[in-house]
Amino acid sequence: MVPAEFDDAVALTPTDTPGEFTITFDTGWTIGNGVNGGFLLAVAGQAAIAAISNKPHPLAVSAHYPSATHPGYAVIHTEVLRNGGTFGTVRVQIVQDDRICVVAHVTCGTAATPASDDLIFATPPHLPPIENCISTSMAPPEMIEQVPMLGRFDLAMHPDQVGWAVGKPSGRGEFTAWYQFKDGRDQDPISLLQVVDALMPVTMDLGRPGWAPTLELTAYIRALPAPGPVIVTHRTRLMQGGMFEEDCEVWDSAGVLVAQSRQLAAQPRG
Amino acid sequence: MVPAEFDDAVALTPTDTPGEFTITFDTGWTIGNGVNGGFLLAVAGQAAIAAISNKPHPLAVSAHYPSATHPGYAVIHTEVLRNGGTFGTVRVQIVQDDRICVVAHVTCGTAATPASDDLIFATPPHLPPIENCISTSMAPPEMIEQVPMLGRFDLAMHPDQVGWAVGKPSGRGEFTAWYQFKDGRDQDPISLLQVVDALMPVTMDLGRPGWAPTLELTAYIRALPAPGPVIVTHRTRLMQGGMFEEDCEVWDSAGVLVAQSRQLAAQPRG
Repeated sequence: MVPAEFDDAVALTPTDTPGEFTITFDTGWTIGNGVNGGFLLAVAGQAAIAAISNKPHPLAVSAHYPSATHPGYAVIHTEVLRNGGTFGTVRVQIVQDDRICVVAHVTCGTAATPASDDLIFATPPHLPPIENCISTSMAPPEMIEQVPMLGRFDLAMHPDQVGWAVGKPSGRGEFTAWYQFKDGRDQDPISLLQVVDALMPVTMDLGRPGWAPTLELTAYIRALPAPGPVIVTHRTRLMQGGMFEEDCEVWDSAGVLVAQSRQLAAQPRG
Repeated sequence: MVPAEFDDAVALTPTDTPGEFTITFDTGWTIGNGVNGGFLLAVAGQAAIAAISNKPHPLAVSAHYPSATHPGYAVIHTEVLRNGGTFGTVRVQIVQDDRICVVAHVTCGTAATPASDDLIFATPPHLPPIENCISTSMAPPEMIEQVPMLGRFDLAMHPDQVGWAVGKPSGRGEFTAWYQFKDGRDQDPISLLQVVDALMPVTMDLGRPGWAPTLELTAYIRALPAPGPVIVTHRTRLMQGGMFEEDCEVWDSAGVLVAQSRQLAAQPRG
């Protein structure tokens, strides 16, 4: 059986040093020349799970990005800080060319299954059926060239939220889109860590195009996702002092809020 | 000049080992027998700033709490992972009795000053004047005894949001309150890290009283706060699988959103 493209890309090779792994980042998960921050979050989650015993899922992953990560070889160091009855905490550090690129702490455990006594205050996003949304597979080749990871998954954007692509940003700073892997792979707690950073930054919709480097990104896995495409929402509350925060929610095909994230990013210079 | 109570409590003593500090947590910043997670976040921010040069403020602090921290002696290890032109990243680890209690990564830099080209989508909270709110200084002595940190600051709660205290939770899971130090100390980026975890958990308003241990807490300092009391809001979007997330915003006396945080906590057993 051929592994799904995503699983192949996040696969880690253990070294002879306990808790150490290597990986070769391919060009398929980049924006410009940098590896996507969400993809790196997934790699950190994957490394944490590989390092700790009896904790199958990353539940809370917080990463800081001191340096950009590029395609190519990298070494991943992990350290299990505690492995308790219900939760465990793992430190992960991704190093490339002697530069520390990503540092993360991961609280691991078992992802939830929705139950009748859950209390849900969040409102599910409104998004037309996938066939009525605007797919990134229709994006011009020069855009795909700049964002190679758009070759790995389809984003089907809300038709009212694509004005930015033709120079007419709405100024609302909100994006909603269907996300599905091109090879049909279903979501799991590791891949959801990529999904939370897959959409274009909301600054695109605020008239500030360009790359928005992530300083910090924290994601919570709130439930095991059902099979099928997921819905992703992005929004910001505040762009101030050259920085903005971006909140993301991921809803599965059963209408369950399966992941939440927030990142602090530097505002594109425009 | 006598230092403010808070500054005295977060003061660090350097050891002979570079990047290492000690601290003695006093009982004044506890809930039950545990040191408050926000106070520990402030200590982590303080340690990061002490360890790195030319970066005066913590901008993004993400902490995981593998073990509870108790009053008494602790050792704090810091490591500067990168110190770039604009941002620097520091790792902080708080160890007590050979247990790793708190691990944090801190992205440091210079906190923003609000400017005319900021884009603000957040809505300032509605809260009556402080004299019309319900102050925790009127709380029964047995409550203060359980939450000693309520001796350090006044919370003046929205009068519509205190039903939980008399056994009538609203079920909305939202809290809004004025916060000010009892000794009149103004806020700064370090103390704001405590403020984001100062209110009672929103689960109190959801009919699930009891202590809600924090697994992960990330805070962003979005601007230097103006002098005077601040307004703090808490809310949750989802209580699921025994866990809930709690979002917090802190607004200063000039109406500026100065801090944001989110935490993942375990639901009280009730």
